[in-house]
Amino acid sequence: MTDHTESDFLTWAKTKQLRIEEVLDEALPPDDQEPQQLHSAMRYSALGGGKRVRALLCYAAAELCNTEIEIADAAAAAVELIHAYSLVHDDMPCMDDDDLRRGKPSCHKQYDDATALLVGDALQSLAFDVLSTPQLCANANQQISMLNILAKAAGSTGMAGGQAIDLSSVGKALTQHELEDMHQLKTGALIQAAALLGAANGSLAQISAVHVYAENIGLAFQVIDDILDTEADTVTLGKTAGKDADSNKPTYVTILGLDVAKRLANQLHETAIGALAPFGDQALRLRQLASFITQRSF
Amino acid sequence: MTDHTESDFLTWAKTKQLRIEEVLDEALPPDDQEPQQLHSAMRYSALGGGKRVRALLCYAAAELCNTEIEIADAAAAAVELIHAYSLVHDDMPCMDDDDLRRGKPSCHKQYDDATALLVGDALQSLAFDVLSTPQLCANANQQISMLNILAKAAGSTGMAGGQAIDLSSVGKALTQHELEDMHQLKTGALIQAAALLGAANGSLAQISAVHVYAENIGLAFQVIDDILDTEADTVTLGKTAGKDADSNKPTYVTILGLDVAKRLANQLHETAIGALAPFGDQALRLRQLASFITQRSF
Repeated sequence: MTDHTESDFLTWAKTKQLRIEEVLDEALPPDDQEPQQLHSAMRYSALGGGKRVRALLCYAAAELCNTEIEIADAAAAAVELIHAYSLVHDDMPCMDDDDLRRGKPSCHKQYDDATALLVGDALQSLAFDVLSTPQLCANANQQISMLNILAKAAGSTGMAGGQAIDLSSVGKALTQHELEDMHQLKTGALIQAAALLGAANGSLAQISAVHVYAENIGLAFQVIDDILDTEADTVTLGKTAGKDADSNKPTYVTILGLDVAKRLANQLHETAIGALAPFGDQALRLRQLASFITQRSF
Repeated sequence: MTDHTESDFLTWAKTKQLRIEEVLDEALPPDDQEPQQLHSAMRYSALGGGKRVRALLCYAAAELCNTEIEIADAAAAAVELIHAYSLVHDDMPCMDDDDLRRGKPSCHKQYDDATALLVGDALQSLAFDVLSTPQLCANANQQISMLNILAKAAGSTGMAGGQAIDLSSVGKALTQHELEDMHQLKTGALIQAAALLGAANGSLAQISAVHVYAENIGLAFQVIDDILDTEADTVTLGKTAGKDADSNKPTYVTILGLDVAKRLANQLHETAIGALAPFGDQALRLRQLASFITQRSF
C-alpha cells in the first residue's frame, strides 16, 4: 500500500535532493581542473543549496510517466544548472545587486563580477552539455525534443525574457495579468520545463496533465515567493528580504494585497492537483510536491 | 573546371555571408515581439556585423563533407550566436570594458549593462534552440553529437574557460605554451566546433583532417589578431586598437615580437593546408579560407 504521509514524502524528497546533489557534483568539473577558480566558483554556485524544487518536479513527473531514472537525472541536473546560472547573473550589481544567496555571499561577492559573469555563462553551457550526453535516451529524437524545450524555456521567450520584462517593470504599475505574463516567463517557463522533461516517457494524457499542473504550480510558486518576501525575515529566507518591494518592483502582494494573494495561491494549487485526478497514486509525488511548494514556510 | 581565383572565393564568401545573415535574421525573434527591447538588442548584437569567419568555416567544411545545407545553416547560426553572445559579455564593464564593437557602440553602451547581460544569456540559449530544431538531421544521434560538441566548445573547458584564464593572466608573464593553451580555449574551441559541425557528414579521414586544419587555423587566427591589434588603428579595426597590450595582457606580439609572430602565423597556415592535401578540389573553400584568414588586413 502506498504511504501518503508527509514524513514519507519528506523522506522521498530528501533522497532526491541528495541524488541531484550527487548528479550535479559528477557533472561539474572538479575544482582542481583548470581553470580552477572558474570551476571552484561554478561548484560554489551550483552545489549545496536550495530546496531543488525544479529537480523534485522533474523526478516526480518521471515517477508518473515511468521515465528512466538516468534521463530524469540528466534532465533535473540540466534544469538546476540553468536555474543556478540565472541566480548568479540575477544577483550581479547590474541586475538585482544582491549580496546574499541561500545564506551565503552571492557569487560576485565571494569571487568578483567577471567570474560571476563567466560562471553563469559556463553553467548554461553545462546544462546543454549534460542533456546532450550521447545515448542518454533510447529514442534520440525524444532527447532532441528535450533539448529544444530546455533551450526555449531558458531563452528570450522564456526565463531570460521574463527577466527583461521584470527589469523594465521597476516603478511601473502592472496589472495582475501583466504580472502573470512576466512570471510565466521568468520562473514559470523553467518550472514547466522541469516537469515536462521529467514527463518525457509519458502518454499524451500524462504529458498534457503535467503541463497544466506545472503551469499552475509555477505561478503558485511565485505568488508564495512574493508572500514570503513580504513576511519572512532575512535569516529565514537566506536572501535579503523585502527586496522586491523595496526596489519598487510590482509583486502579487503589492497588487492584490496579502489575503487575496494567499487565496490565489490556494486556487492555483487546487487547479494543479485537479489535473492529476485521473492518475491516482502514480501522481502521488507530484500531488505531495504541490502541497510542499504552496505550504513552504522556509 | 574549378575556379581557383581570389575573386571567385570572395564571391563565394559574400554569398555565404549574406546567407548566414538571412538565417540569423530568421532565427532571431522580431523586435516587435515582447520583450521588445531585449529582442531589439539581440538583433543589434548578432546581425550585420563581422566577417562571419566561423560561419564560413562551417560552410566550407560542409562543402568538403557533403553536409546538407540546412544542417550547415543551423550549425553556422548556432556558432555565430555563441560568438555574438561572447562578444556582448566580453565588452561589459566587468570584463574588457570596451565601448566599441565592429565600429558601433557595444551592446551595453547602446542599451545598458543589465540588457547586455540578458542579451548574451538569451543568445546562448538561442544557439542551442536553433541546433536542437526537431528533424534537422536524418540521423538524430548525429544531431545530439553536434549539440554536445557545441556545448563543450562554449563551456568552462572551452570558450568560457579560456576567458577565465585570459582574465587571470592580466599582468602575468605567460610562456608561449601557456598563451597557446589559453587561446586554444578562448577562440580555438569555437572555431574548431564551427568546422567540425560543418563536417558532420564527413568520413573519418575528412573529419580528422578538418580537426587538424581547424586547430591550426584557430591559433593562426589569434596570432593574426594580436598582430593586427598592434598594427592597425582604431578606425580600420572597428574596435579600440592596442587595447590588449595597453591593458597589460600577454599577446603573441609581446611574447614573440612582431616578426616571429608573423612567421608563426605562416607556419600554422601551412600545417592547416597540409592536412587538406588528400582531398583536392573538394577542400578548395577550406584552403582559400585559410589564406583569407591569415592574410586579412581588415
